[in-house]
Amino acid sequence: MESIQYNLPQNRIPLAWYNIVADLPKPMAPVLHPGTLQPIGPEDLAPLFPMSLIQQEVSREREIEIPGPVRQVYAQWRPAPLFRARRLEKALDTPAKIYYKYEGVSPAGSHKPNTAVPQAYYNKIEGTKRLSTETGAGQWGSSLAMACAFFGIECKVYMVRVSYDQKPYRRALMEAYGASVTSSPSIETESGRAILAEHPDTNGSLGIAISEAVEVAAKDPNTKYALGSVLNHVLLHQTVIGLETIEQMALAGDEPDVILACAGGGSNFAGLAMPYLGRKLKGQSQARVVAVEPSACPSLTKGHFAYDFGDTAHLTPLMRMHTLGSTFIPPGIHAGGLRYHGMAPLVSHVMDLGLVEATTVQQLDAFAAGIQFARAEGIIPAPEANHAVAAAIREALQAKEEGKERTILFVLSGHGHFDMQSYIAYQAGKLENYEYPAEEIAMALAGLPSVS
Amino acid sequence: MESIQYNLPQNRIPLAWYNIVADLPKPMAPVLHPGTLQPIGPEDLAPLFPMSLIQQEVSREREIEIPGPVRQVYAQWRPAPLFRARRLEKALDTPAKIYYKYEGVSPAGSHKPNTAVPQAYYNKIEGTKRLSTETGAGQWGSSLAMACAFFGIECKVYMVRVSYDQKPYRRALMEAYGASVTSSPSIETESGRAILAEHPDTNGSLGIAISEAVEVAAKDPNTKYALGSVLNHVLLHQTVIGLETIEQMALAGDEPDVILACAGGGSNFAGLAMPYLGRKLKGQSQARVVAVEPSACPSLTKGHFAYDFGDTAHLTPLMRMHTLGSTFIPPGIHAGGLRYHGMAPLVSHVMDLGLVEATTVQQLDAFAAGIQFARAEGIIPAPEANHAVAAAIREALQAKEEGKERTILFVLSGHGHFDMQSYIAYQAGKLENYEYPAEEIAMALAGLPSVS
Repeated sequence: MESIQYNLPQNRIPLAWYNIVADLPKPMAPVLHPGTLQPIGPEDLAPLFPMSLIQQEVSREREIEIPGPVRQVYAQWRPAPLFRARRLEKALDTPAKIYYKYEGVSPAGSHKPNTAVPQAYYNKIEGTKRLSTETGAGQWGSSLAMACAFFGIECKVYMVRVSYDQKPYRRALMEAYGASVTSSPSIETESGRAILAEHPDTNGSLGIAISEAVEVAAKDPNTKYALGSVLNHVLLHQTVIGLETIEQMALAGDEPDVILACAGGGSNFAGLAMPYLGRKLKGQSQARVVAVEPSACPSLTKGHFAYDFGDTAHLTPLMRMHTLGSTFIPPGIHAGGLRYHGMAPLVSHVMDLGLVEATTVQQLDAFAAGIQFARAEGIIPAPEANHAVAAAIREALQAKEEGKERTILFVLSGHGHFDMQSYIAYQAGKLENYEYPAEEIAMALAGLPSVS
Repeated sequence: MESIQYNLPQNRIPLAWYNIVADLPKPMAPVLHPGTLQPIGPEDLAPLFPMSLIQQEVSREREIEIPGPVRQVYAQWRPAPLFRARRLEKALDTPAKIYYKYEGVSPAGSHKPNTAVPQAYYNKIEGTKRLSTETGAGQWGSSLAMACAFFGIECKVYMVRVSYDQKPYRRALMEAYGASVTSSPSIETESGRAILAEHPDTNGSLGIAISEAVEVAAKDPNTKYALGSVLNHVLLHQTVIGLETIEQMALAGDEPDVILACAGGGSNFAGLAMPYLGRKLKGQSQARVVAVEPSACPSLTKGHFAYDFGDTAHLTPLMRMHTLGSTFIPPGIHAGGLRYHGMAPLVSHVMDLGLVEATTVQQLDAFAAGIQFARAEGIIPAPEANHAVAAAIREALQAKEEGKERTILFVLSGHGHFDMQSYIAYQAGKLENYEYPAEEIAMALAGLPSVS
C-alpha cells in the first residue's frame, strides 16, 4: 500500500511553540501608540488582553512552552495529518509530489482552534468572564466559541455582514457552542453606528468588525478581546502546524521545494512558514516560501509597507505592516477570511527581509481548484484554502511543463462544509473575478497615518 | 497528559471484512422473488449489482478480503479514531467512561464511504459506467458521489424531498463531486410519478427514492444500482468500524459494558455491532448491544418481523425484516438517514436471536444531546448520530444515579456540518417531537405481503 498519510502519535504534539523573533537578523519595528506615536508598553494592552498573551506578544524567547491543559485539548486532533495528494498528482499527470497539512480535522474545521484554545485558556486562568471578537467567514468565530465553551467563558462575536448573510450555518455552529453572534457593522457600538451612517449598504469588513469587538472590550472591565490573526502571539500559537509538518515530512522522507499557504491576516501562513523559515535561517532548507493572496485584496503584493491601524475605526495601535489602507473595504469575495486590509506585521517583516514571496489567485481560479481537489482528494476546501490549492496546482503544472520533479507542500487550512453557498454560486456561474480595486486602494493608502 | 485518542497506524486497517453469517447459530431466512415467492438466485440480482457484490451478499465465508485499492482509499481516513469523551464525562459528572468511534473523519463526513468505496470499486472493475442510488439526509449520496469521482463512474442520486429541501449544502457537495441530484419523488420515473399522483405534497421517503433508483438501473443496461444500507454486503463493508474499535479498546485497556449506535437501515449499527457480536458468540464479550431508533420510525421496537419489500413501489425482492410496512411514509424528522420503514435483515435476525436490544429517542432529546456533546467535545454530530449520543448520555446518567462504573461505547457516525438547518430550527424552538404514528403504521402493516 502506498503511504498517503503521515501521522505522529499524541505524544509528538510539540511541547513548545516556535518564536522566530529570536532568530530574525533584524528586529521588527515597534508597535506605536496612536496618540503619542511612542512604542506601546504592556500596560497599554492590558485592558484588551491577559498578561500572559501580552508577554508572548513581545517575547524574544525562541521556545514558549505550551501549557499542559492546552496540549490536552490539542490532543483531540493534533498532531494533524500530513497527506500526500497522490490522486491529485495522477489527475494532474505531474512529476511533482504534492503534500498537504490538513487543519480541517479540528472540531471547528480549521487551523483557528490552535490559537483559540490557548487564548481561552490564558484568559480563563487570569479571570476573564467574557471574550469579544470579530470573524469573517466564521472560522475564527466558531473556533473561539468552541474554546470558550470548553473553558466556560462567554463569547461575543461580531461577524462581517457579507459572511453573516452568506454563511448562516457557520453562525448556527457558533450559536450551538453557546456564543452570541451579531452582524457587523451593528448598531451596538459607536464604531458600527458611525460606519452605518456613512455606508448603510456596506458588506462590512474584518477591519470594521475588529473595531466593534475592541470597543466592547475596552468599555467593559469584564470583557477582554481576542484576535484570530495578525498579532505575534496568534502567529506563535499556529507554529504547531509547521513544527509537526517538519517531523512528518521527515517521516515521508521528503523535503519541500516550495511551501504555500493562503494569507489573509497571515496566521495559517505563518503557522506553516515560520518553523521552515527558522530552518532556512540556519541553512537547513532552501524552500521557496510563498504567501497566496486573493487578487481582490492583495496586501503583500500591492500594499505599502507602512504604519497603519489594524481596524477601520482606528481604535488599535499602529503597526508597521503591508497594508492597503485601513479604510479600504475589500470586495465581497467568498473567501471572507482573506478580506483584511493588512498583513500580520511579522509576516510583513519577513517579506521585507526577502525571506518569503507572495502571489495572487483570482476567485474563479480558486473555486475551480477547490472542485478539482474535491473530486481527487474527497475533501472540499474552504474558499480561503482554495487559494493555496490553486497555487499548488499551478506549481505542479509548471513542474510538468518543465518536466521536472518538485516537492510541493501546502497547508489546507480548513474544509468548506460551512461555505457551500459559495460553491452553489460558483457552480451556477454566479461568481465573478474582481479587478484589482485600484482606485479605492489608492484613496485608502492616501489616508495612511504619516508615521515613518 | 490523559489519553483521549486511540489511534492505529495505517497498516492496521483490517485486511478483511467480518461476515457474522459464518458464525450465526441459526441461518437467516432467504430473500424471496416477489413473483414466485421462491428464494432468489444471483441471476435475479445481476441487472442491479456487479457479481462480486452479489457473491458477498450470499457469502458464508467468515472473512472477506478487502481489495488493495479499497484499502488504499480507506488509508486517507482509516483507521478512524476512537475517542474517550473525557470532557463530556466531566460535564455529566458521571462515574461512567464514554468512548466514541468517530466516523465523521471521512472526507464525506460519515461512515458511508466505508461501503461506497468498495461498491464503486467492484462496479468499476466489472465495467459499470453509471450508478444510481437514493439518499435521505445525503450522507450516503455524497459518499457514493465521492467514490464515483475517485473511480471515474457517473453518479445519479435520488434525494428524499424533505432532505433535498432541508439540506441544500449536502446536495451542493454531491454536485461538487460531479453527481447529478434529483428530488424524490420525481417525474423521471414511473414509481415517482405514481407516488406524486397519489401524494403530491409528500415528504418523500427512502422507500420511494429506492424505487426510483432501482427502476432506473433495471431499465438501463449501462446503469447499476447501489444501496447505502440494509443489504448484507453493505453491512459487511461497515465492519471495519467494529474491527478497528476492538483493537482500539484494547489499546485503551477497556472493554465496553454497553455498545450503542443509531439505526435507520442498520449499517453503522451493524458496522460497530457485528464484530462485537462475533466476540459475544465466542463468549469473549458480555456487552449489551443496543440499536437506537427515532421514536417516529421505530422498526425494531414496534415493527413486525415479517417478509416485506425494501421499497415503496415494490420493485425489490421480499426480505424478512423488522418493518413498519413498506407503504409507511415516516414523519419528516431531521434525521433523514433514519427515515426508513424497515431494518436490515441481518440486524433484524440478530435481534430475533436475542443478541441485541433496541431503544428509541425523541427528536428534541436527540438535538439536546447534540448540543451538549458539541459544547463538551467540539464536534457537532449529525442528527442521526445524535440518537446514539442521547442514548449514551442516558446510560451515563443512569450509571451516576446507580453510583456504578460503566464503560459505554458508541459510534458517532457522522458530523452535522451539512445539517445545520436542523440545529437552527431546534435552537429557534421550531422542532417538535413526533408521537408514534400508530394509525399510519397499522395501515401499512395491514398491507404486508402474506408470506410466512
